Amino acid sequence: MASDIHHRTEDFRTVYRAALKDLKEVLGTANDVLMFSSSGTGAMEAAVSNLFSRGDKVIVCTAGKFGERWVEMASAFGLDATVLKSEYGDVVAPERVEAALAANPGVRGVFVQASETSTGAAHDVRAMAQAVAKTDAIFVIDAITGFGTMPLDIDGWGLDVVVGGSQKAFMIPPGLAFLTLSQKAWRFAETSNLPHFYFNLKKEKKNADAGESSWTPSTSLILGLGAALEYIKQVGMDKLIENAQLLARATREAALALGLELFAAGSPGSSVTAIKAPQGMDSGVIVKQFKSRFGAIIANGQGSMKGQIFRIAHLGYFDFTDLFAVIAGLEVILAANGYPVTYGTGVAAVQRVYAEAALPKTTLVS
Amino acid sequence: MASDIHHRTEDFRTVYRAALKDLKEVLGTANDVLMFSSSGTGAMEAAVSNLFSRGDKVIVCTAGKFGERWVEMASAFGLDATVLKSEYGDVVAPERVEAALAANPGVRGVFVQASETSTGAAHDVRAMAQAVAKTDAIFVIDAITGFGTMPLDIDGWGLDVVVGGSQKAFMIPPGLAFLTLSQKAWRFAETSNLPHFYFNLKKEKKNADAGESSWTPSTSLILGLGAALEYIKQVGMDKLIENAQLLARATREAALALGLELFAAGSPGSSVTAIKAPQGMDSGVIVKQFKSRFGAIIANGQGSMKGQIFRIAHLGYFDFTDLFAVIAGLEVILAANGYPVTYGTGVAAVQRVYAEAALPKTTLVS
Repeated sequence: MASDIHHRTEDFRTVYRAALKDLKEVLGTANDVLMFSSSGTGAMEAAVSNLFSRGDKVIVCTAGKFGERWVEMASAFGLDATVLKSEYGDVVAPERVEAALAANPGVRGVFVQASETSTGAAHDVRAMAQAVAKTDAIFVIDAITGFGTMPLDIDGWGLDVVVGGSQKAFMIPPGLAFLTLSQKAWRFAETSNLPHFYFNLKKEKKNADAGESSWTPSTSLILGLGAALEYIKQVGMDKLIENAQLLARATREAALALGLELFAAGSPGSSVTAIKAPQGMDSGVIVKQFKSRFGAIIANGQGSMKGQIFRIAHLGYFDFTDLFAVIAGLEVILAANGYPVTYGTGVAAVQRVYAEAALPKTTLVS
Repeated sequence: MASDIHHRTEDFRTVYRAALKDLKEVLGTANDVLMFSSSGTGAMEAAVSNLFSRGDKVIVCTAGKFGERWVEMASAFGLDATVLKSEYGDVVAPERVEAALAANPGVRGVFVQASETSTGAAHDVRAMAQAVAKTDAIFVIDAITGFGTMPLDIDGWGLDVVVGGSQKAFMIPPGLAFLTLSQKAWRFAETSNLPHFYFNLKKEKKNADAGESSWTPSTSLILGLGAALEYIKQVGMDKLIENAQLLARATREAALALGLELFAAGSPGSSVTAIKAPQGMDSGVIVKQFKSRFGAIIANGQGSMKGQIFRIAHLGYFDFTDLFAVIAGLEVILAANGYPVTYGTGVAAVQRVYAEAALPKTTLVS
């Protein structure tokens, strides 16, 4: 048999139960955690199609491509969305959410990205949660690149639905999505009238309690997730977040040391750092040369930002040695394309951040 | 980076385009083929939520657990379904489909399983297709275990939508689903009004034409599928089907030689053979002992058939050596549980089928 493990066996149930339990543990929540074999977008859809009804008033925060995904999804399912839009690179201020909730009585849900992957910006989820908690609405958060890169106190802050995926800080290939559900969120499932089948929260919960998934799951990825969760438990979720935050800071320092301008400078997140390409240089050239010269993958801007910015990820299984190499490569590529660079300038900035965080204060660094 | 291949790169586009092209080739169709990162059930839902509208009249054939899935799905999306039901182990006769189409003018779709995995029965898809082709309805076939185990001439027979998955005859772990779409089916997408987002055929088609998937795909599984398709092209889809058919026949002969009774004896398919447990023996005991004694996986019955039947799969990467071992193991397990067995009786039946198919006629066998 080519398959790895059969999904209707006690062996699989043991693996699946452990993965769900470990996921709860590393996410630090007492809420239910459910998993789907899909991209993270599937779990986003599960929240919409299982908890809301046609015509429900909702508030959608958008400040980039993934915010637009919430907007499109709300539209696809016939929700009545008030859209709070900010420009790419900016964020939606919590005060706007509070004001919109006050101005729109009867709002049933508020949607946001914890970390807007397309720009590298991070939303103030905690402050937004405080505003939402005072109302009858539920707070639905796409944390696909938020988990493992920023603190998200699901239970303490009252985050009703939080969506994650396997391929970011969880360090395995894409194909699994999961979400957490508060009791307040579950009550919404009682009245929702939108059609859904594959993404069925109640059915998935019932099956998960029996150690199974509703449909044939991505068994190989679940085995991988189990191993990744073991690693995360060993390292500690807090440490994983600190690591991403430190690397993000080092990346920003390096960019600034090289005279580059940061994108989303006001509210930088720690999953990915977006940097503006130098004047007159297409960011796609930088991305392509990372691949051709060093076999390394960084990302171009998305949508209208394509060609304008490049994005360096530093979440999950990513450490200073990776960042030393990426910044050194960046220096070479910038120089090769006519941008004035003193080799080592950016790397030195990364080294200083590392030294400050990890070396005894008496170490001589300059 | 822990990820295998980034999905917004030319490397991935090359892999994805090749996988879709090879899939078309091995399925032998000129119709569009689209892929989703989900269980096969996701592609079933895609057909329902993208091609039909609330209240559409449809005919659903059901003769087992997966037929019931079509029924539940039609209900979840508010379709007006006429259900043609047959008992587990039986099939829905094509004449009933023809009669139902005649009795229900305006039917928009007919749903069936090519191979009903829960019972091992195979439907006469070709004859049903002839009946549907005369009408304005489209024919939607779950071929998750049909592909690679029975001839399915998609274009020649006019099969409008055919759904497959990665984990059966395609021999890789679960997590990818795909479907084929005829021009007649695409026309239905123009009028469908059901909400959908993750499973969006038009969007997926547009992205597939550009070598991408709409959402982050299961990259590792797509790489695996590419390798599996290379293998299938090398072996030949016809040979893969013949192999499954021969192994299915050998499994039936072995069961009969051991004095066991076949389930779905009237219309046996070649993906899986369902066999009734001997009187007084729980089929779950046989399944469990396969695992504990031989580390081998066979399946129990599903739903009401649990404890009554056991199912031996023989599709994809499965050959006579596997079947020799499975039948020998079965003999031991039956004997260990008090069923009278002459060791080797079932194996000999398999050997005779093999010899007849593969050895020169002059070989001495008994």
